[in-house]
Amino acid sequence: MYQYSHGGNAAFESGVEIKLDLSANINPLGLPEKVSAAIVSEIPNLTSYPDSSSGALRDAISKFEGVDSSWIFCGNGASDIIFRIPRVVQGKKAMITAPTFSDYERALQSYGADIVYYSLGPDNSFTITDDFVTAVEKEKPDLVYICNPNNPTGRLTESALIGELLKRYSGTMFAIDECFLDFTKEAMTHTSKGFLAQHQNLIILKAFTKMFTMPGIRLGYSLCSSESFNDSLYFHGPDWPVSTLAQGAGIAALEGAEDFVKSTVSYVATERELMERELTKLGYRIFESSTNYVFLQSPFDFDLQEELNKQGIRIRSCNNYHGLDNSYFRIAVTTKENNATLLSAIETITR
Amino acid sequence: MYQYSHGGNAAFESGVEIKLDLSANINPLGLPEKVSAAIVSEIPNLTSYPDSSSGALRDAISKFEGVDSSWIFCGNGASDIIFRIPRVVQGKKAMITAPTFSDYERALQSYGADIVYYSLGPDNSFTITDDFVTAVEKEKPDLVYICNPNNPTGRLTESALIGELLKRYSGTMFAIDECFLDFTKEAMTHTSKGFLAQHQNLIILKAFTKMFTMPGIRLGYSLCSSESFNDSLYFHGPDWPVSTLAQGAGIAALEGAEDFVKSTVSYVATERELMERELTKLGYRIFESSTNYVFLQSPFDFDLQEELNKQGIRIRSCNNYHGLDNSYFRIAVTTKENNATLLSAIETITR
Repeated sequence: MYQYSHGGNAAFESGVEIKLDLSANINPLGLPEKVSAAIVSEIPNLTSYPDSSSGALRDAISKFEGVDSSWIFCGNGASDIIFRIPRVVQGKKAMITAPTFSDYERALQSYGADIVYYSLGPDNSFTITDDFVTAVEKEKPDLVYICNPNNPTGRLTESALIGELLKRYSGTMFAIDECFLDFTKEAMTHTSKGFLAQHQNLIILKAFTKMFTMPGIRLGYSLCSSESFNDSLYFHGPDWPVSTLAQGAGIAALEGAEDFVKSTVSYVATERELMERELTKLGYRIFESSTNYVFLQSPFDFDLQEELNKQGIRIRSCNNYHGLDNSYFRIAVTTKENNATLLSAIETITR
Repeated sequence: MYQYSHGGNAAFESGVEIKLDLSANINPLGLPEKVSAAIVSEIPNLTSYPDSSSGALRDAISKFEGVDSSWIFCGNGASDIIFRIPRVVQGKKAMITAPTFSDYERALQSYGADIVYYSLGPDNSFTITDDFVTAVEKEKPDLVYICNPNNPTGRLTESALIGELLKRYSGTMFAIDECFLDFTKEAMTHTSKGFLAQHQNLIILKAFTKMFTMPGIRLGYSLCSSESFNDSLYFHGPDWPVSTLAQGAGIAALEGAEDFVKSTVSYVATERELMERELTKLGYRIFESSTNYVFLQSPFDFDLQEELNKQGIRIRSCNNYHGLDNSYFRIAVTTKENNATLLSAIETITR
């Protein structure tokens, strides 16, 4: 049976008892309060087709994001949109960083694009720098995916750099994945939303999955100011991409979302900083993350993931990311209690 | 804003008051009893990722369909699977009938295949005959979609003909869409399920949408005995295609499904036959459908859809189907009451 190379699958693997799954990066604050009731209230509407363009949900997202609702496309998770993009772009050459979220590569392989991998490395903490602009100049790709902050490193890319790319390469489509950006303190200064009005070669990806703690519902969206690009997103994928229940859940999640996001950012920052401090003390190499996961390299001979598995704690080995190996790990920042359990387990293993 | 060319959108169009929507073909018996409770009970699980291969749901489908659970792939509506198929097949040439369900064409256009249209016509009531085998022989397509019974005609294709195609053209993939087959009295004799074990060039499409009255939930599945084809279906599309709520809803819908389907078939047959009889009396040309919609040609000058619109009744003009024009209409067979309302409205308009 086919297995996707992501975290978060532990519950469906047989013979594994999982006490704590830190392999997927989900908001520790849990499902926003109004979501359950919204789902229940949508059940009687299941006997009709959903609104194929998610009109009411787009209106709610429009308010939350401060962008025009016609710029928004809603899909069956951000992954749905990641797969549609190469088909809309119809270009032969694409560029992604190594490492980065694996879905870009799979979507490009599915489309049949040639992929150029831009290597990030530990020397500058896996940061995208001006050298990336030079690489785009040289390769002239039709499509570039940038994950900001990057998965699995948690490292941010500067707005100015993205602005430069958009301006200089108007024939290249830039898909900027901001699925983890709202977890960071730097969201306001690092979002590419400010470029949307001026640049039609930009599409920003976001999801309800992580921030609103609803991976089970499958709901993502994109922001793009090009009407023809958005129309083409509808064309290049299944109809009615978002179920009636997901549309209702999304609308409910956005009620009071500003406060929810604010509390999340502060909770996550405190916990992440604590984890990074403690793991550094234990001898792990930390690449300072800005978001709700910690990215580290282990200098030790034992396999951290295997050792934690024995204690029922699941983290994400980065062995199957391009450009990384089995010394790198990504660990979700979740609740204070979970993080304490994790740290105590790692301490026992390491000492 | 992009609009899909399907029925069932009326509720989201502005300025239209709809009393009766017969443009989408949904089971008049409504949502199976246990579905609502199953959805509610899945809400606490939304904070984890869904089972990416829908294991428990596949087990339930396996029992219902009487096929191995490893042959089943579950998607975000049958439409999701229709879009994945050309990418799995990776062939240049595809064949579809005209008319047929429009998603096959869009999926093929999205992939970039050359499409051969095989014309069906009123002279033999839009039936697929041996001449179709000759056309496949001549065109040698890599992929063929056959909708059985066909949408919008409701006409069945004989099993023997499909068996012949599978045997003679093992290098061609045949996608047989049986989404409306379980509504017919002829499901047992006309399903292609019996060919699955012997023929790996067959994929059968089915959906919960119509039979289990849940278009709002987006849930479809396919049956295919080729392990590599099924693995490739996972590869060529977004991960976690089916939400936790949809998986729970599907499992619940299948409890007691045999009786539900039996009652549906009998209810629909009675109502369809009545509608077809009455519409024939009023002067409409009926092409005997086997399923839960009526397909007709109007000999009159007025536009039947427009006239019914004025009375708040929405039917499906077949003007945008290849090979049909604005004299053809598809009307859903729903409840006794709805059908009576419709017939009385058509009588008033026609006389």
